[in-house]
Amino acid sequence: MALRNIIQRNNLAGLIFWRPDELVLTLAYFPHWGASFLVYREDEAVLFVPETEPEDILPEGVRIIKYPWGIIGYPDPWSNLYNKIRDVLPDKGVHKLPVSFVKNIGGSALSRTSAEQPPLPQDLVERLSAISEGGYKDCSPELLDLYAYKTSEDIVSLELTHHVAARAVEAFYKNAGSGRTESSVAASVESSVQEMVGEQRVRFARAWAMIQSGRNTAWGGTYNRSTGKKLGPGEMVLMELAVCVNGYWADITRMAQTPGVSARQLNVINVVSEAQALAISMMKPGINMGDLDAVARNHIGRSGFGHLFNHALGHQVGFRYHDPGAGLSPGSDAVLREGMVLTVEPGIYGIEIECGARVEDNILITADGYRVLS
Amino acid sequence: MALRNIIQRNNLAGLIFWRPDELVLTLAYFPHWGASFLVYREDEAVLFVPETEPEDILPEGVRIIKYPWGIIGYPDPWSNLYNKIRDVLPDKGVHKLPVSFVKNIGGSALSRTSAEQPPLPQDLVERLSAISEGGYKDCSPELLDLYAYKTSEDIVSLELTHHVAARAVEAFYKNAGSGRTESSVAASVESSVQEMVGEQRVRFARAWAMIQSGRNTAWGGTYNRSTGKKLGPGEMVLMELAVCVNGYWADITRMAQTPGVSARQLNVINVVSEAQALAISMMKPGINMGDLDAVARNHIGRSGFGHLFNHALGHQVGFRYHDPGAGLSPGSDAVLREGMVLTVEPGIYGIEIECGARVEDNILITADGYRVLS
Repeated sequence: MALRNIIQRNNLAGLIFWRPDELVLTLAYFPHWGASFLVYREDEAVLFVPETEPEDILPEGVRIIKYPWGIIGYPDPWSNLYNKIRDVLPDKGVHKLPVSFVKNIGGSALSRTSAEQPPLPQDLVERLSAISEGGYKDCSPELLDLYAYKTSEDIVSLELTHHVAARAVEAFYKNAGSGRTESSVAASVESSVQEMVGEQRVRFARAWAMIQSGRNTAWGGTYNRSTGKKLGPGEMVLMELAVCVNGYWADITRMAQTPGVSARQLNVINVVSEAQALAISMMKPGINMGDLDAVARNHIGRSGFGHLFNHALGHQVGFRYHDPGAGLSPGSDAVLREGMVLTVEPGIYGIEIECGARVEDNILITADGYRVLS
Repeated sequence: MALRNIIQRNNLAGLIFWRPDELVLTLAYFPHWGASFLVYREDEAVLFVPETEPEDILPEGVRIIKYPWGIIGYPDPWSNLYNKIRDVLPDKGVHKLPVSFVKNIGGSALSRTSAEQPPLPQDLVERLSAISEGGYKDCSPELLDLYAYKTSEDIVSLELTHHVAARAVEAFYKNAGSGRTESSVAASVESSVQEMVGEQRVRFARAWAMIQSGRNTAWGGTYNRSTGKKLGPGEMVLMELAVCVNGYWADITRMAQTPGVSARQLNVINVVSEAQALAISMMKPGINMGDLDAVARNHIGRSGFGHLFNHALGHQVGFRYHDPGAGLSPGSDAVLREGMVLTVEPGIYGIEIECGARVEDNILITADGYRVLS
C-alpha cells in the first residue's frame, strides 16, 4: 500500500528493490546470493532471482522470473538480468515513465570484518537508471522512510531475532572469564547463534560478536573488534553484538566484568546504564530525537564524563544492523513515531579512565510508549 | 614497481586503491572499516584512513593522512575524504593527468550470507572519477592483472591462512557426525578458526563454513549454505569453506561421510578426486587454462557424469575468496604463470544421483610446476 502510494504520487513506471534489507522490508525475503531484484509496479510485483537461488526461500504471492547466473556459459549475468527487467516494463505502457530506487543508502563499515550490508554495484546502478524510456526519478526520502515503520509481522520476526540474541548474551556472560581470549569468547557467542538454525522458524542465523576487554574497552566508541588479548582479572568486558535471523537484525551491547573490577570502573557502567534508562523512559510517539540524546548526554555530563561520550545516542535498526533514517543524534528535530525500532546506546570511553562502557538495547515505539525488544 | 610502471605507461596522476583486497595486495594491510584509500603516485604513496581505524593495524612505510569518520559532527565523511584526496593531487603538477582505479571487479555473492568482498559504493565511484582535472582513465586490465602474481611475502601469508584452514578441516572431520545439524557443524568449524586469533602472526581470522549433507549435497554446485537439517546415517557431507587470515584467503572444499554411505556415492567422490589429481599433475607455467578444465571434464565425462559438472574447474584466489582474472574455464586460452594461485575444484551434482561431491584445493604455480597450499 505504501509502495503503491509512492508510485502514484510520483507517476512512476515502477520501483526497484535489490538490497537484502529492501527485500526483507517488502517481501520478508532474505536472499541467499543478494542478486535478486524486485520490480514493483502499480499493478504487479515481479521478482527476478538468479536461477541458482535456493527454491525453498523464494517468497510466495509474487511473480518470479529466473535468470541464468553463476553457471557456465553466462559470463555477464547482469546483462541477462537487465534485458529481462526491461522486457517486463513495456506491459501496460508504463515504459515511458521513470523508475525509482535508492542509489545510495549511506556508508558504514564496508569491509567483511563487521555486519554491514554491501552497497549496490556501481555499474548496475548506472544501467538500472536508464532501464526505462522515462529515465530515473529520485524518491529516496520516501523510500528510506519505509524503514521507519515495522509492521506487526516485522515485529514478530524481530522478536525471534531477539530470542536468538538472548542466547548469544547468555553465552557471552558464561564465557567472558579470565584466561579466555577476546576472539575465543566471540567464537563461543557466534557459535551459539548459528547452532540455533533449524529451531522453530530459524532458517538463517548469524552473529558478529566483537569483544573488547580491559584497556581495549577504551576504544569501544571508536571501533569494535576481537583480538587475541586474554581477559585478565579485574577487567571490564564489552560485547558489541550484531545478530541476523532470517534477515531481521538486532544490535546489542553488553558489559561483563572479571572479578576484581574497581569501583571507579563499575561507576562508569552505572552512569551509562542510568543515562540509558532515563532516555528510554521518555520514549513515545511525538518525542523529539535530539531531546532524547540530550537527556542521556546531560546525565553523562553531570557525572563528569560528557567529553567521553563521542557518538550519537542511537539509530534505527531491524532491516539492517544500522537502518537508514533519522537517529537519536544531538540537535536532531526528528520525532519518534509508532512502529519505529531504535537502539539506545550511551557510552563513555577514554584512555584517561583506562576503560570504556556502553549499554545498548533495541526499543520499539508503541502507540503510547515503548517496548524493549532486547 | 609494477604500480610505477602502470603509472608511467599510462601517464597517470596516480592510482587509487580502496577495496580490502587491493590494500592487502599493495600494502599487506587489511583495513578494519573498509574505508581506507591509497593514492599511489609515481613518487609517493599516501594512505587516507578514517580516524576511527585501529592504530595497530596501520601499515608502515607509507604516508598516512587521517580523515574524520563515523564520529559526531561529520555527517558526510566521504566529502571530507574527497577534499583531502584532491588536496594531495596538485603537488608536483600531476593534477592535470587522469587517475585510474578499478570501477568494477565483477559480481559474485553480494549478500552477507557468504564471504564475498563488498563492491565500491556507487556515489564514490562517480566522485573519484572526477577528482583530477585530468579525469579518469581505465587501466582495469593492468590493475586486475596484479592479482595474478603472488609475491614471496604473499605466499608466506597464504601459508599462514592455510595453516589456519587446516584446523578448520580437522574440526569438520571431527564434528561431521550423525545427529548434528549442518549449521552446528558449521559453527564448530568457524569457531575453530576465530579461536586462533592471537596465535603467532594471526591478527584477524574468520571462516565461512557451508555444510550440506545427504540430498542437500545435490545442490552443492548451485549454492552452498548450512541449514538446520541433521546429518543422518549413510550420508555424504560437503563443506565449502572460506578462510580469511589477515586479509589473505583460502577457498577449500572437503567431503566427509557418515557410516553406511553407498559404494555408488563413494564412487562420485572418487571420480572428482581423480579428475582433480589429473588436472593438478599437469600444472606449470605455460599450460593452457582451458586444457586443464578439459582434462578434468573429460575424466568426469568418461565416468558418465559429464552433464553433472555444471561449473568451471577453478579460479584465482588469495586476495579475495574469488580473485578476478582468468580462471580454469572451458575454452579459456589464458595460460598459467609463475606466482598464480588457483583453485582446482571439479564437482558432480544431481538430483538424479541424489547427491553431489566436490573436492577443492588451492595450487601455487611455481617456476617449474606447482605446490599444493591447502
